[in-house]
Amino acid sequence: MARVLVTGASGFVGRHVVEQLAGRGHEVHAVARAGVGADVPGVRWHAADLLDGASAAALVREVAAEALLHLAWYAEPGAFWRSPENVRWVEASLALARAFVDAGGRRLVVAGTCAEYDWHDGLCSEASTPLAPATLYGRSKHALEIVLSGLAVEAPLSFAWGRIFFVYGPGEHPARLTASVVGALLRGEPARLSAGTQVRDFLHVADVAGAFVALVESDVQGPVNVGWGDPTPVRRLAELVAEIVGRPELLRLGALGAAGEEPPLVVADPRRLRDDVGFTPRFDLRTGLQDTVDHAVAASRA
Amino acid sequence: MARVLVTGASGFVGRHVVEQLAGRGHEVHAVARAGVGADVPGVRWHAADLLDGASAAALVREVAAEALLHLAWYAEPGAFWRSPENVRWVEASLALARAFVDAGGRRLVVAGTCAEYDWHDGLCSEASTPLAPATLYGRSKHALEIVLSGLAVEAPLSFAWGRIFFVYGPGEHPARLTASVVGALLRGEPARLSAGTQVRDFLHVADVAGAFVALVESDVQGPVNVGWGDPTPVRRLAELVAEIVGRPELLRLGALGAAGEEPPLVVADPRRLRDDVGFTPRFDLRTGLQDTVDHAVAASRA
Repeated sequence: MARVLVTGASGFVGRHVVEQLAGRGHEVHAVARAGVGADVPGVRWHAADLLDGASAAALVREVAAEALLHLAWYAEPGAFWRSPENVRWVEASLALARAFVDAGGRRLVVAGTCAEYDWHDGLCSEASTPLAPATLYGRSKHALEIVLSGLAVEAPLSFAWGRIFFVYGPGEHPARLTASVVGALLRGEPARLSAGTQVRDFLHVADVAGAFVALVESDVQGPVNVGWGDPTPVRRLAELVAEIVGRPELLRLGALGAAGEEPPLVVADPRRLRDDVGFTPRFDLRTGLQDTVDHAVAASRA
Repeated sequence: MARVLVTGASGFVGRHVVEQLAGRGHEVHAVARAGVGADVPGVRWHAADLLDGASAAALVREVAAEALLHLAWYAEPGAFWRSPENVRWVEASLALARAFVDAGGRRLVVAGTCAEYDWHDGLCSEASTPLAPATLYGRSKHALEIVLSGLAVEAPLSFAWGRIFFVYGPGEHPARLTASVVGALLRGEPARLSAGTQVRDFLHVADVAGAFVALVESDVQGPVNVGWGDPTPVRRLAELVAEIVGRPELLRLGALGAAGEEPPLVVADPRRLRDDVGFTPRFDLRTGLQDTVDHAVAASRA
């Protein structure tokens, strides 16, 4: 059991991480700008604006955690791909890591992204797929990884970098893909989508969180894909949601044009996560979407 | 003619840059921590600690330059390869670039390094040599380039990145290679070196500065090697210095063991600098070393 500092703790992935870490007996220090989140036994909440380096460093010193799980980032749907806010988050993340080194931290785990890979390759493997991010978001995460893995050698620090693929599940921002389809169908409104031929790799948020918890507890070094490894056309995901909700007639596949820059295939090679980290997802796509719809139904009745 | 803000202006390369920019009629705003440097007509000095983001941003706003030439970095000989100070300079450089964007800046030129390349390749070409920095210094510079080139697209900003190879010349830190050989031989002391079989690419500091001045004045985008393209064994450089000083008997080649990690070959492909930027060095190695020795002799008599 360890003392773990979690940033982005009130976010989509962070909420699940905090619960799971506490459930496994860790002493969890959860950071959020507002400083409050779900009241979970074993979790202490801290208010800090990580973009303010001095207050972030003071918190890191005060908590003196053995492990730091850094999930916080700018995540406004749509805007996050190109926003200069990404640059500020590189700065803030580097300052945070330096503070963690100075405070005697041992294990650093940071959220990366599949957008670091060259998406022309399609199947993304940590060892062999070129890293050629096409967006400021992907570049910023990739650059952060490059510096942190060098800092980890010199500090020294045990360091892993979890590259998140496509996440869905309870608590997702309503403007994002799965949540928007679930929301529209449950409201009895049409869900307008592209033809949905692009193939992605979807993982339930509780499993994404579980993968990060496993990374915190392991001593695996370097990049690890956080994905299922199951190539899924977007239309297949939409059709499963429609089937679960029971409103297939509301699905409007092809109603929207394809986004110009959408790559046809982005799928994780999941072997490192399963074999080296020893993590296996609880949900497949059908049970994960069922869980997502169940939560949405429950929330609408609450 | 443009208003140009130069960081690292009192450094080895920076002093030459400031003189040359002013000589070409630009309005030069030179930044140094101490805030003073050579009294050159057309150069105004500013004191700022770039590691203090707020004061750096205030200066950038106040000067409102069209071009920013960012040379400042942590440069302690030997220590700079592995120091965590590199991480702070990534943060400071990103904050500086954001401030420049916010202040309406147009052209950004930043000093990179040949240490970004995979040195197993030897001949370093911007278009084809893999980037695989082996040190925290190389990683930090490479990461900075990745973020800045993404920010340049979004800002938008005209952006070039000059990868410096091996610099020598007047004003070099006495602990560095060429200056230490020149210094020892002029004092009549033995110069102890490795066998010197490793091949490098040496460029006189006035030409390195000239290349950056040309980059500021051009609109070339992306990485540009700042090197001569002349493969030179270190022993050849040492022998030339000894010949110029007239003390070949003081050269002790092979007196030191080779450093374990020294790559055999690091040479620039110089074509982009010559063809796209249109810059040609003034000094070849012999005339450049003669100039270096002449300055050292003059300085010792002053």
